[in-house]
Amino acid sequence: MRQAGRYLPEYRAIRARVPFLELCRTPEVAAEVTLLPVERLGVDAAILFADILLITESLELGLAYSRGDGPVIRHPVRSAVEVARLPERDPYETLPFVFETVRRARAALAGRVPLIGFAGAPFTVASYLVEGGASRHFLETKRLMYGDPGAWHALLGLLARTTGRYLAGQVGAGAEAVQLFDSWVGALAPEDYRRFVLPHTRAVIQAVPAGVPVIHFGTGTAGLLEAMRDAGGDVVGLDWRVDLGAAWARLGPGVGVQGNLDPAALLAPLGAIRQRVATVLAQADGRSGHIFNLGHGVLPETPVDHVRVMVDAVHELSARPARPADVGAG
Amino acid sequence: MRQAGRYLPEYRAIRARVPFLELCRTPEVAAEVTLLPVERLGVDAAILFADILLITESLELGLAYSRGDGPVIRHPVRSAVEVARLPERDPYETLPFVFETVRRARAALAGRVPLIGFAGAPFTVASYLVEGGASRHFLETKRLMYGDPGAWHALLGLLARTTGRYLAGQVGAGAEAVQLFDSWVGALAPEDYRRFVLPHTRAVIQAVPAGVPVIHFGTGTAGLLEAMRDAGGDVVGLDWRVDLGAAWARLGPGVGVQGNLDPAALLAPLGAIRQRVATVLAQADGRSGHIFNLGHGVLPETPVDHVRVMVDAVHELSARPARPADVGAG
Repeated sequence: MRQAGRYLPEYRAIRARVPFLELCRTPEVAAEVTLLPVERLGVDAAILFADILLITESLELGLAYSRGDGPVIRHPVRSAVEVARLPERDPYETLPFVFETVRRARAALAGRVPLIGFAGAPFTVASYLVEGGASRHFLETKRLMYGDPGAWHALLGLLARTTGRYLAGQVGAGAEAVQLFDSWVGALAPEDYRRFVLPHTRAVIQAVPAGVPVIHFGTGTAGLLEAMRDAGGDVVGLDWRVDLGAAWARLGPGVGVQGNLDPAALLAPLGAIRQRVATVLAQADGRSGHIFNLGHGVLPETPVDHVRVMVDAVHELSARPARPADVGAG
Repeated sequence: MRQAGRYLPEYRAIRARVPFLELCRTPEVAAEVTLLPVERLGVDAAILFADILLITESLELGLAYSRGDGPVIRHPVRSAVEVARLPERDPYETLPFVFETVRRARAALAGRVPLIGFAGAPFTVASYLVEGGASRHFLETKRLMYGDPGAWHALLGLLARTTGRYLAGQVGAGAEAVQLFDSWVGALAPEDYRRFVLPHTRAVIQAVPAGVPVIHFGTGTAGLLEAMRDAGGDVVGLDWRVDLGAAWARLGPGVGVQGNLDPAALLAPLGAIRQRVATVLAQADGRSGHIFNLGHGVLPETPVDHVRVMVDAVHELSARPARPADVGAG
């Protein structure tokens, strides 16, 4: 999950002087933001600070961020002709600043915690390109998908190739794992996911160098989990709308899970937060392969102290009980 | 699912002269709208035309509908004091026009198809009261739920008692089944649903007279289906984010299912619509206890002809194949 954001006063201070896209394009600052949650909260990994739509910058569609941080695509792509017109460019040429951010963040972390790379999955990125921004019902996206499957697959194919190279580039620059965000894929029926999305997501995951763990995340995916697992990857990200234990049982022992505290739970009183962390950990039942996380990003309204209490509770409650041998050695 | 709406030109014509709340309060017109989909589309049941927030009119919170049809509650309820201040009034006194709509619609249907009553479930209605309108993250709702469970349960208890009487009243006036809409309950973790919502939904369902079928519907509920079944009711409504066959298998043979075509699929070309109807019917596998429906309401952008094609396809494709005895008798 992206960890930096508006709930952090340090981030808000940076954003007061640097617009969002400029921040993403400035490795020195983006690397600093990448490290913020490690320093401020004591989390166990850093996530590259970037935006899932950076990859579309090379498509010349007029990406901009409105005042409220919502992305706007001035020239949405809604037909076969418009898809065919998209240039296919190499992220090594178009996004050098991201790779530089990865290099700087990795160096600054100096081995304290691992660095996780980050990209949007083809469906979610395509939804912005087709809708022209955020969406509630994804009507234009589905209209293209159902109405012109050929154009749809061409669009997702292009995004998958570019995203695969982009993630491989992040690994080359120093990312030790990667997260693939299919944030809005939960809008789809399972059958549509398998037909219109899975092959492209699989292509992205296969482009990640062997041995680098891939975390595959979406929201509202309670009906899609098996299909997402089938797309590949080592860890399936769960949102809070599923019972973590039940979801993991469905996925089987072959994959890990990440999740899944409701981000809104961080608005609760501190005692309730600790209790809810304990519940998630109990559902994971101490099995290795569980990465504790929120079920989606930190909400801007969240008090930083509450996030800190969550992190501390995870560390405290998931510390392995001392085994007899350890006691003897201690 | 509510069947009447802005996609119907006849409905738009009525709304051009009658504001939304006035329509709900005028039995003659509300009954006419209730029958529209039966006459226009040939569906197999009529759903009472009403709004889930009518029940809150007696709470004196300043319910209004903005130009875009979005509900606004001028005085949201966010504390124990505000909950305690809510008057508890009998829907027989406050909503006589709904019962009159039921009587008129039942009479006008004259036995052609059954009439289904309709109410919002306590969680979804409470979410509007607490947020003050529609919401994306339900932060205030969850803040109250986590922060003051006593106030939360008092609020849902009040809504459950009132809604139970409201549905019993609809049955008394002539509704032959009822649908309970928990449209936004999919925002909750399963654990929170069981603790903060299920007992109240169960109380509503138990207040429906014995022998009257109850359909229990929500969206984004792929992780909540078993818990929703445990709240009671004869049929669980499924949205399109689950495979209907897999969901029914999870629920077991004790309940029926309703669903679950993606409403956005009605924007597809006509051939694709027929194909997708066939897929849903194949997932139901001809088992009795499946009510074909969309996974949520008809989108305003939907061409009426496309809805009609769906209804016709359901009738055609779900006609039982002739058994040998029938053939002999024919």
